[in-house]
Amino acid sequence: MKKIAVVAMIGGLLQPVSAIEARPTSLEKPLKIARQGSFFIGGRDVSSAALGEIKPYPSSGQIVVDQIYVRFQIPDGKTRSPILLIHGCCLTGAAWETTPDGRSGWDELFVRMRHPVYVMDQAWRGRSAFDPTIINEVREGRAPVNALPVVTSASKEAAWEIFRLGPRYPIAHPGLKYPVAALSALWAQMVPNVAPSLDARSPTVEAISALSQREKGLVVVSHSQSGIYPFLATKAGAKEISAIIAIEPASCPAVGQFPDRSAQPRILVVFGDYIAQSERWLPRLEACRKFVDSAKAAGLDAVLVELPKVGVFGNSHMMMQDTNSAQVATIIDDWLAARHL
Amino acid sequence: MKKIAVVAMIGGLLQPVSAIEARPTSLEKPLKIARQGSFFIGGRDVSSAALGEIKPYPSSGQIVVDQIYVRFQIPDGKTRSPILLIHGCCLTGAAWETTPDGRSGWDELFVRMRHPVYVMDQAWRGRSAFDPTIINEVREGRAPVNALPVVTSASKEAAWEIFRLGPRYPIAHPGLKYPVAALSALWAQMVPNVAPSLDARSPTVEAISALSQREKGLVVVSHSQSGIYPFLATKAGAKEISAIIAIEPASCPAVGQFPDRSAQPRILVVFGDYIAQSERWLPRLEACRKFVDSAKAAGLDAVLVELPKVGVFGNSHMMMQDTNSAQVATIIDDWLAARHL
Repeated sequence: MKKIAVVAMIGGLLQPVSAIEARPTSLEKPLKIARQGSFFIGGRDVSSAALGEIKPYPSSGQIVVDQIYVRFQIPDGKTRSPILLIHGCCLTGAAWETTPDGRSGWDELFVRMRHPVYVMDQAWRGRSAFDPTIINEVREGRAPVNALPVVTSASKEAAWEIFRLGPRYPIAHPGLKYPVAALSALWAQMVPNVAPSLDARSPTVEAISALSQREKGLVVVSHSQSGIYPFLATKAGAKEISAIIAIEPASCPAVGQFPDRSAQPRILVVFGDYIAQSERWLPRLEACRKFVDSAKAAGLDAVLVELPKVGVFGNSHMMMQDTNSAQVATIIDDWLAARHL
Repeated sequence: MKKIAVVAMIGGLLQPVSAIEARPTSLEKPLKIARQGSFFIGGRDVSSAALGEIKPYPSSGQIVVDQIYVRFQIPDGKTRSPILLIHGCCLTGAAWETTPDGRSGWDELFVRMRHPVYVMDQAWRGRSAFDPTIINEVREGRAPVNALPVVTSASKEAAWEIFRLGPRYPIAHPGLKYPVAALSALWAQMVPNVAPSLDARSPTVEAISALSQREKGLVVVSHSQSGIYPFLATKAGAKEISAIIAIEPASCPAVGQFPDRSAQPRILVVFGDYIAQSERWLPRLEACRKFVDSAKAAGLDAVLVELPKVGVFGNSHMMMQDTNSAQVATIIDDWLAARHL
């Protein structure tokens, strides 16, 4: 009954709940994988004389950067829409894997819901190589010190507020569903960002396009800093994206900037709890609300879910790791299932 | 018949081949996974005022570095010895995953052989965060330019020789089994190394120890630059390691330095083809031969396999990606199975 209410509230339900295809509910059963593995998308050659030291080889030559690492699992049997998971700032694809307190990550939950799942490391982070040459050039006196990149790591203190775990480190919001007893595993996931700017045009956009060409009907799930990329990819011509699911996007498209007429992805934007107390997220939620309203007015299937408004409380910005992460995944999957995705 | 000959030649067979437990031979069957996911081992807090820029947050605070990312898959059903795969220089755990030409990686092959498999990204590489603070300190004028790390990326040209694909880039060795048509996927896997020195004491050693405490009977498979770490971990007290499998280790322990009396792991060292033509690898093979001989003389179960001497030709340094990578994995697994591992 409760589930039906939630599904109905987030709108667009085309079938009675009983007609939504059955999904496994037990996480205990063995997972049957038809195919799995990893690959890279993109990349560009960089020729440099500042590649560091592997004696006795010269420090000049060619390397490849901007490529994007993608790991995938295809469930055995009949599959639904493929899903791409794109992590946010200061993290890698590991953010979607096992939660800090050891529960199955969304990467596995969506496979169990019969979606082929693709997880990327954004360009220049994690297993996607960054370009180190400018650092060596500065060290060798061949470039000025101010040419060094600003390498950004989110401190525990900053991440605490950005991830909306509480008003300030280490005070938690009342009722917070983040597994704070396992926080050390969150800090361990975080990586420096060497890219010149987090919000600049990113190889991520091209990678989304490339994957959507290959995996028809791709559902692109972004988080936070990656929020704008699926929209940019769609605007740039990625017509095969069936849905964009933006988990607390750092930015939504400006009103009037999306959609164009050539692509009409379904859109779901999800925000968690404690938004009103967050100077960072309140204006972003408001901008996304305007965007969703404008997209709806333009005839798109666009839905904004504020979790507390559908009776789901306590969610942080890291809702894929919150203690009710499976519930949030199910809400998303209900939205997909109602659209036969 | 051929298989029996190979097994016999690499020695130590305790049972007739028919008694070796059956392993799946088809890669087409769905893979049944009991549990999978990822976690981090270790890590240390770093307090810094040089954490880059996430406006409006201060650039001071605490981050965590030295932790090691580990992804794992536990096959469904009865399992054999757990295996840890540790990549080599300039790579990440992705090196063990899907081969450049799209075949199953050793990570999956060993799961199909019923081993729980753990794959790490060495400290400061891939999903294991490096410490960026010194770069920001130099940029901000708070540290001298020569404090910058030497960030090492192997060029295509250097990697070609180190990986023994041929005498020099892009000339391949005759009969080479590396999938050179898919080389771009190899270059895409390579990442910069920010660590002060590849061969210095590494958090990898502690991570091996920690995992061996948790996963009794751990088999540690190293490659190249990581070759010495399992031996160092064993010397430092990791008594639960059942076997060390060193794939073309950059160094073997010096004669007399291993073992100590408290730990007696079984040892398999594997070298590929074209060693005599390699100024880099010939002395390393010779040093490993001396080490294996000394370990045998000390009563250890230690085996050196030079693949051409058991009739397997054309293997590069990247034998986990060569076109006969499944054959090499089977040779290793035969050695394990003969020891009931």
